[in-house]
Amino acid sequence: MISDKMKQAVAGSSVIRAMFEEGKKLSDIYGADNVFDFSIGNPNVEPPLSIKKAIVQILDEESPTMIHGYMNNSGYEDVREAVAQDINRKHNLGLTFKNIVMTVGAAGGMSIICRTILNPEDEVITISPFFGEYRNYVELAGGKLVVVPATPGTFELDLRAIEAAITPKTKAVIVNSPNNPTGAIYREDAIKGLADLLTRKSAELSICIYIISDEPYRELIYENIKIPYMLKHYKNSFIGYSFSKSLSLPGERIGYVAVSNEMDDFEDVMQGLNIATRILGYVNAPSLFQRVVARCLDSEVDVYAYKKNRDLLYGHLKSLGFECAKPEGAFYLWVKALIPDDNAFAEAAKKYNLLIVPGSAFGCPGYFRLAYCTSYTKIEKSLDAWTNLAKEFLSSAWSNKDFLI
Amino acid sequence: MISDKMKQAVAGSSVIRAMFEEGKKLSDIYGADNVFDFSIGNPNVEPPLSIKKAIVQILDEESPTMIHGYMNNSGYEDVREAVAQDINRKHNLGLTFKNIVMTVGAAGGMSIICRTILNPEDEVITISPFFGEYRNYVELAGGKLVVVPATPGTFELDLRAIEAAITPKTKAVIVNSPNNPTGAIYREDAIKGLADLLTRKSAELSICIYIISDEPYRELIYENIKIPYMLKHYKNSFIGYSFSKSLSLPGERIGYVAVSNEMDDFEDVMQGLNIATRILGYVNAPSLFQRVVARCLDSEVDVYAYKKNRDLLYGHLKSLGFECAKPEGAFYLWVKALIPDDNAFAEAAKKYNLLIVPGSAFGCPGYFRLAYCTSYTKIEKSLDAWTNLAKEFLSSAWSNKDFLI
Repeated sequence: MISDKMKQAVAGSSVIRAMFEEGKKLSDIYGADNVFDFSIGNPNVEPPLSIKKAIVQILDEESPTMIHGYMNNSGYEDVREAVAQDINRKHNLGLTFKNIVMTVGAAGGMSIICRTILNPEDEVITISPFFGEYRNYVELAGGKLVVVPATPGTFELDLRAIEAAITPKTKAVIVNSPNNPTGAIYREDAIKGLADLLTRKSAELSICIYIISDEPYRELIYENIKIPYMLKHYKNSFIGYSFSKSLSLPGERIGYVAVSNEMDDFEDVMQGLNIATRILGYVNAPSLFQRVVARCLDSEVDVYAYKKNRDLLYGHLKSLGFECAKPEGAFYLWVKALIPDDNAFAEAAKKYNLLIVPGSAFGCPGYFRLAYCTSYTKIEKSLDAWTNLAKEFLSSAWSNKDFLI
Repeated sequence: MISDKMKQAVAGSSVIRAMFEEGKKLSDIYGADNVFDFSIGNPNVEPPLSIKKAIVQILDEESPTMIHGYMNNSGYEDVREAVAQDINRKHNLGLTFKNIVMTVGAAGGMSIICRTILNPEDEVITISPFFGEYRNYVELAGGKLVVVPATPGTFELDLRAIEAAITPKTKAVIVNSPNNPTGAIYREDAIKGLADLLTRKSAELSICIYIISDEPYRELIYENIKIPYMLKHYKNSFIGYSFSKSLSLPGERIGYVAVSNEMDDFEDVMQGLNIATRILGYVNAPSLFQRVVARCLDSEVDVYAYKKNRDLLYGHLKSLGFECAKPEGAFYLWVKALIPDDNAFAEAAKKYNLLIVPGSAFGCPGYFRLAYCTSYTKIEKSLDAWTNLAKEFLSSAWSNKDFLI
């Protein structure tokens, strides 16, 4: 018999993943072309050609026992050094391989960070709506997730609300910009404000509050916006990075954690991350793909494709009367449901073969998330379905004109 | 500041991994040729050529967004089906993809199994000497490791000792054959005896005691020995498999868990493994290498190279007077230290540039482990160092003739 906790988990399994499976079932019935799956952030934009080229070159040039072998749990030193130099070039820092741990994606990164810093019952603040897996990573390490809502409408950091949530048990604040699910990007003044707040509260309470900056969408931005680099603004911060989206490699599970020398107890923290990589059963980030990303740090995917998708879908939903913030980055739309019950709304959408994720999965009922990392033609084909869905609900909404405000 | 648990972990970090790092340091000083690193099971035998061929073919034939994309957390269905059919061919079973979860190596497999079945304080029995990481995988899921010694000398399962260790909190028994570190292989009568014992005790105590069969060394056997397949002998068993050793791919983190339909609560267990893969932050086994191993299930590494290594090293150590069981599989020698303090002995060996792992790391002081997955010429070159090490201790041992018995 499975454990009690797992029984609960089986009962309330990930809505996003369940939707992904549902999409496959609907595809079998109606044909993949007629199912509009906006449920999961599985990039449709191809990885850059440099990936294939790098793989073939590595197989030709490097020793197979080295390419596929064990290395330090933190990753190959030359790969970590290449990552450090790339960060230095882009953000004018002085990192070396000692500041980098290669991870099994950002998920592996978040998990080893939590394992390294959290004592039982320690609190980790995150901003809702938030990527639901944060709860798992925090609880896996024995911590408690404390959810603080973002500023309504703009989805910016609400510093006063964050301050009110800080207690002597607060160990970290998770931020995610560009944001999943809202697409919001935190500007430099917001990050400076957060850094000041946490510096002040850390001193006041004689604790160390870390920032965990989850950055899988850093390169996916649509306007000329500069995303501040957390290590420059707050010494006790972790960067959790993933190549899943920037190079369209989500299945390969490859990312890294970056930490500044200035962090309190730097040596202990780096050794903790190293050990956590081993004891959580990751052992090391996949070896070939460590070597691949080191050769492809200058590569990028076609972000314009996502921008085109955003413009088409955002424009259409707005024209139908949906309330929705225009995403500045990532590849998600965060939309207000046309009825208060977001789960019922997602169920209703299925009638039109539209697969969406209820906002409750992000700690924020009444909304839904669309992942528009799908093909442009698929989005074009889905527009009628959106119109029909809106019609069903807007006929009743028209009788209550306040609803869409 | 890092967590209290992690502080302890940093203090008592993995001896095997520390040795691996030490080897690199000594190599910098004396040159890699003059350091004899027998500390880590990092295969020196090259992966089969089919691996490179499969990678290139997959890159040429399959869609890049599919190859590198997300899939069901349990893995690609076609890969899981290929693995199931391979098991069916070899062991005359009727598995399908539904019986298989692709994992981040055997470590990932062990971790998701423990997460799926263990309630807090549940006990998991393992047989000493044992791979030290088992403790981490069990404790990560809130369980307690209970260590039962193997039969001295032969390192067989001691069924009476196992029975004596079973309590109403016992949830599983971990077995590992061919064994790390002893190289012992459990025969069919031993496995049948264990299955009978656990069936009887499960009924007696109204519990379900699982077997977790950790099998990364299944293909590395030197004599004509048939290793029993656990799923045929005990319905409530998990196979934790890894391609790390069978295809020399340890850095790629690719393996699987196999479960029989006959297992109690089969559907719940498989869903639990799927969810555990996600919530432990693995998300899925690395995608390209799932597809690679599916094409290479008939490939094998040159086991004869390991056999030659075993014969040379075993023969030399025995001629020097070391007490040591002849390994039937895997690539480790398990040797009695020449003084009771195995840590001191490993320290002494360093003087001769010999890196070995003290038996304490395997729950069995007074011994040490050698990983002979290194080059034959390196082993040849190390023979004098072994002779010198033995001389240092045997001169005193000769004055106490009982010592080596």
